[in-house]
Amino acid sequence: MKTYIITIGDEILLGNTLNTNAAYIGAQLFEINIQVIKSSVIGDDNSAILNELNFASGVADLIIITGGLGPTHDDVTRKSIVDFFNTELIENQEALEDIKTLFEKRKRIVTEVNIDQAKVPKIAEVIRNQLGTAPGLWIEKEDKIYAVMPGVPYEMEAMMEFTVIPKLKERIGEGQKILLRKMILTTGIPESTLYERLGNIDELLQGAKLAFLPNQFGVKLRLSVEGDDEKQLKNKLTEVEQRIRGKAGRFIYGVGDDQLEAVIGRLLMEREFKIATAESCTGGLVGNMLTNVSGSSKYFERGVICYSNAAKVEILKVNEDTLAEHGAVSMEVAMQMAEGVKSTSGADIGLATTGIMGPTGASADKPIGLVYIGYCDEKVCTARKFHFGDDRLLNKQRTAQAALDFVRRQLLGISWDD
Amino acid sequence: MKTYIITIGDEILLGNTLNTNAAYIGAQLFEINIQVIKSSVIGDDNSAILNELNFASGVADLIIITGGLGPTHDDVTRKSIVDFFNTELIENQEALEDIKTLFEKRKRIVTEVNIDQAKVPKIAEVIRNQLGTAPGLWIEKEDKIYAVMPGVPYEMEAMMEFTVIPKLKERIGEGQKILLRKMILTTGIPESTLYERLGNIDELLQGAKLAFLPNQFGVKLRLSVEGDDEKQLKNKLTEVEQRIRGKAGRFIYGVGDDQLEAVIGRLLMEREFKIATAESCTGGLVGNMLTNVSGSSKYFERGVICYSNAAKVEILKVNEDTLAEHGAVSMEVAMQMAEGVKSTSGADIGLATTGIMGPTGASADKPIGLVYIGYCDEKVCTARKFHFGDDRLLNKQRTAQAALDFVRRQLLGISWDD
Repeated sequence: MKTYIITIGDEILLGNTLNTNAAYIGAQLFEINIQVIKSSVIGDDNSAILNELNFASGVADLIIITGGLGPTHDDVTRKSIVDFFNTELIENQEALEDIKTLFEKRKRIVTEVNIDQAKVPKIAEVIRNQLGTAPGLWIEKEDKIYAVMPGVPYEMEAMMEFTVIPKLKERIGEGQKILLRKMILTTGIPESTLYERLGNIDELLQGAKLAFLPNQFGVKLRLSVEGDDEKQLKNKLTEVEQRIRGKAGRFIYGVGDDQLEAVIGRLLMEREFKIATAESCTGGLVGNMLTNVSGSSKYFERGVICYSNAAKVEILKVNEDTLAEHGAVSMEVAMQMAEGVKSTSGADIGLATTGIMGPTGASADKPIGLVYIGYCDEKVCTARKFHFGDDRLLNKQRTAQAALDFVRRQLLGISWDD
Repeated sequence: MKTYIITIGDEILLGNTLNTNAAYIGAQLFEINIQVIKSSVIGDDNSAILNELNFASGVADLIIITGGLGPTHDDVTRKSIVDFFNTELIENQEALEDIKTLFEKRKRIVTEVNIDQAKVPKIAEVIRNQLGTAPGLWIEKEDKIYAVMPGVPYEMEAMMEFTVIPKLKERIGEGQKILLRKMILTTGIPESTLYERLGNIDELLQGAKLAFLPNQFGVKLRLSVEGDDEKQLKNKLTEVEQRIRGKAGRFIYGVGDDQLEAVIGRLLMEREFKIATAESCTGGLVGNMLTNVSGSSKYFERGVICYSNAAKVEILKVNEDTLAEHGAVSMEVAMQMAEGVKSTSGADIGLATTGIMGPTGASADKPIGLVYIGYCDEKVCTARKFHFGDDRLLNKQRTAQAALDFVRRQLLGISWDD
């Protein structure tokens, strides 16, 4: 099923907004082995959209369109769809109910423009939108499928997950080669070091494919095998994964969509442990990540964002002399912060971050990117030094990820030595 | 000068890599008032590239191509250029010298594949690359310009800055229309309500253009005017902006690239105020946002992530009876949290969040999305009720944004009534 992605929006052409939608759709289709042959971006312009639809329907079987479905005058996609298919708008009851429900929930009054959004091209089936007012459109004509979705990323993503991908999966059906994939998630090791650690790559893979996908949280390994016999392929995948784990297991925190914060959550729940955080340089990001997991109130007791020294002393009982002697960014203070938040909260584990995130705040012996992470449980109080980069936001993210990985390693008894 | 951007690379189609290059190029061209009419992404495939070049040269005057110029087998762009222009490769002395200099600097030995990279299509002028081995190509044929650059972002960006943009500026010369734009940032008002509030859109704009760009943090308004007289256009832009501010000013927190957390930071610094946060449902996100701003330690005193009731009582001195009577998610507790974090920290402002983020935790009278935000300064202690949606992460983001906007409104004395 050859696929063509059309992203509509001046803000993308102008470089105001990154085209994350096309990337998301590309990645989702890739997961179900549908090939994207081309992706294009055009402005909010009726004739440009019509040209693009014409062209795309000549070369692709599936055309996915996002953007320009909003309620205002600059949203022209729905009109272009009506023109392209030579159809008309009719009010759709399901879409209208969804809009009304959404407004009721938010205690707001439905406006005329919102009711107008419930009008959809006659030729289209509605892709329901639980998160916004613009319904998506699913159109089939002359063996081609057109899926039209709003440009708001979370609305589009929910439509992909709950409607578009399931419908496409049904279509793909039989006769295709079987493609199995597994994403193996690592953190705490740079791409090149990981690559070297895996040794001879042909021996390791024996015909399987492996892609390295690095970002600030770690390196994802995308492992894939293709063939006809599903059982054989599954075995092969398992074998290669085992060999990878044999060489780099301690850096692997999960597979697929696992998130480190959820992995930590499961480990804490299994042990019936509660955790408390003391964040200086991460400013709340560790707490934010932990609480992104539904049910985290079961194991996340509290957090202290001790940006000032006063907060470190008053709430966490960090020693003023230690602060004066070693400075707030030090091994000693990291450890005392972890210990302090553990003892004052009564949690089983205290986790602390302190560091220089930049661009200001560095000194001769404390450069930007210097971070200490402290960890304390009933058996051990410890801290480690890390060196990250120059970028403030990336440094916060890397520090938070390293702090969570610290908990994983301590709970699983994974050594830090090579 | 109508422009078509072609990005070449499987990793972009597959969604492994965001197309930051097209965004960068779009933004740079926008600065010199060159209009991008379309941007496309295709794979590393000779016939796809030829098709795209054919199509683009039919509709655009300037075609900018990035990607696929590297030294490995999957880089095919140079071959496609040779095929498209029916030309041949010849060794370019300047490019060869650049490659040799680069390798000398890095103390590495020049390999055969690198020397091969100094061969360029005969029809092309070289765009020098000081940061990598692949030279860029500048080709002019039949009144069209083709600029071909590597996909490595910093190599491409340097070529744009030092060669492509200066050359284009020379070309544009006189006689072009002037285009002025301004981005106006709103929060706390849904797109459709904002649209209605602005009233008759033609009267408001009087020939200017306005685009609505919504996301979970608010609605951005992109205002633009086009014409010949820069001074007149500037006045026009100011006039329309003033009319928009007249109708929706209280929802506008900034312009251009402003971020609400930085706007709050400036307001706090002007007043020499310090802020402290007490976060329940946002779990640290408000603190994380505030501390994303460099220099925030000047006004962010501390934060408490009081996920448990114990933390609310122990650190923030929330009354246990109030908790028992009204529950943790209540107007009363939000206000006491704000008051508590203000008084225990000695900050000038206390800001608090409590709510049901979902998907669990709802009860009959406290649905998912119910949020209370508390605010306390030396003059006033107050709290407000909000209703957001069903999605946990979006609810956290909306709550954090609303909490920061609460501070903005209080500091600027903006009324909540319509």
